[in-house]
Amino acid sequence: MAPPVSALVFDAYGTLFDPFAVKARAEELFPGNGAALSQLWRAKQLEYSWLRTLMGRYENFWKITEDALIFSCRTLKLSCDEQQRKQLMRVYLTLPTFPEVKPALEKLARLSLSILSNGTPEMLSPLVAANNMAHFFKNIFSVDALHMYKPRPEVYQLAVASLGIPKESIGFVSSNYWDIAGATSFGFRAYWLNRSSSAADELGVKPTATLPDLSSLPALLAHS
Amino acid sequence: MAPPVSALVFDAYGTLFDPFAVKARAEELFPGNGAALSQLWRAKQLEYSWLRTLMGRYENFWKITEDALIFSCRTLKLSCDEQQRKQLMRVYLTLPTFPEVKPALEKLARLSLSILSNGTPEMLSPLVAANNMAHFFKNIFSVDALHMYKPRPEVYQLAVASLGIPKESIGFVSSNYWDIAGATSFGFRAYWLNRSSSAADELGVKPTATLPDLSSLPALLAHS
Repeated sequence: MAPPVSALVFDAYGTLFDPFAVKARAEELFPGNGAALSQLWRAKQLEYSWLRTLMGRYENFWKITEDALIFSCRTLKLSCDEQQRKQLMRVYLTLPTFPEVKPALEKLARLSLSILSNGTPEMLSPLVAANNMAHFFKNIFSVDALHMYKPRPEVYQLAVASLGIPKESIGFVSSNYWDIAGATSFGFRAYWLNRSSSAADELGVKPTATLPDLSSLPALLAHS
Repeated sequence: MAPPVSALVFDAYGTLFDPFAVKARAEELFPGNGAALSQLWRAKQLEYSWLRTLMGRYENFWKITEDALIFSCRTLKLSCDEQQRKQLMRVYLTLPTFPEVKPALEKLARLSLSILSNGTPEMLSPLVAANNMAHFFKNIFSVDALHMYKPRPEVYQLAVASLGIPKESIGFVSSNYWDIAGATSFGFRAYWLNRSSSAADELGVKPTATLPDLSSLPALLAHS
């Protein structure tokens, strides 16, 4: 039988924090292009994190997020000046949580809760502060300490090393299936928040459970 | 001054061989969905190659190509049975070359020419044979020997180790910008065939030259 989950580690962007505001701001700046820009921007942000890790050419998440924005504007032929770029980048520092997140975290507070994110400490601290969430989290882990991105196993090991708990007792929560695949492959118990009712990627691993959002996790863990 | 290029290493899919036939076959099987299916299929095929390398869960390119197809059909709600899947997969074994490829290779034949591809030997051999191109190539290198995908530097090193030529004297040719970035980062002279007039990704490296297709490479190298 699996040991009980004694600590939870959360992904940040898209899992706790709702990136919808990025799309809204993009639509204000470039009417009619908000959806396309935010979608391409996000896809390229992830792609750059993977490619730079594979090439061994790490740059931090702020830099690759800005690089992805520059590429995306160029591809969509949007003339995005420095001022507009700064406005879009700043949205990342004040994203709101999804509505069910805080009530669910209250119910999970008996466990050790941490964040493990691609974001830099300089991106994550203001985000957590802006949402008055610092009291929920024991640790905020950033891949920046390792100079490589998820889903490299060393990134997930960072949380294990610091928490001092066997990985089989750590639950990892993300809305990003590729991140769930990495966490599962590493050995975490992984809970996929399938917020957009997507198909699961074919990556040879299966999460411990799939949930529509965070609200059902407290009850699930109470019975585990 | 840079040493002259004495060997050329080519990417296969999209560079020498035209994947348009995949879209055409997909459109025959799923009318109205050929473009969407072939586009998502290709994106996921690459994504799976990167993610599996990062996770350390290598499966060969035939397997991940089929996995990407399964995911893509599920996402687009296309009921693709095993027979249809096999039909689509088989297209990969008989892709034609782009029209300018063979005349250009004739003009480049004074150099040592090789292929370096994510594809397995079992995928590449029939493809080269179907196009009567075996006589052009000294080597057909597959990442399958290393169990990791581009753009890991070890993959590009595979060609250097076998050719026995300094990497500064090897020209790498690809239509995939991320592959060009990996090759440049590794130390090859890299020639980007920008077949679709795309924007260059922001990955901190610049190719040696950007060409619309392979036809202008022989003249460029004659003057290098």
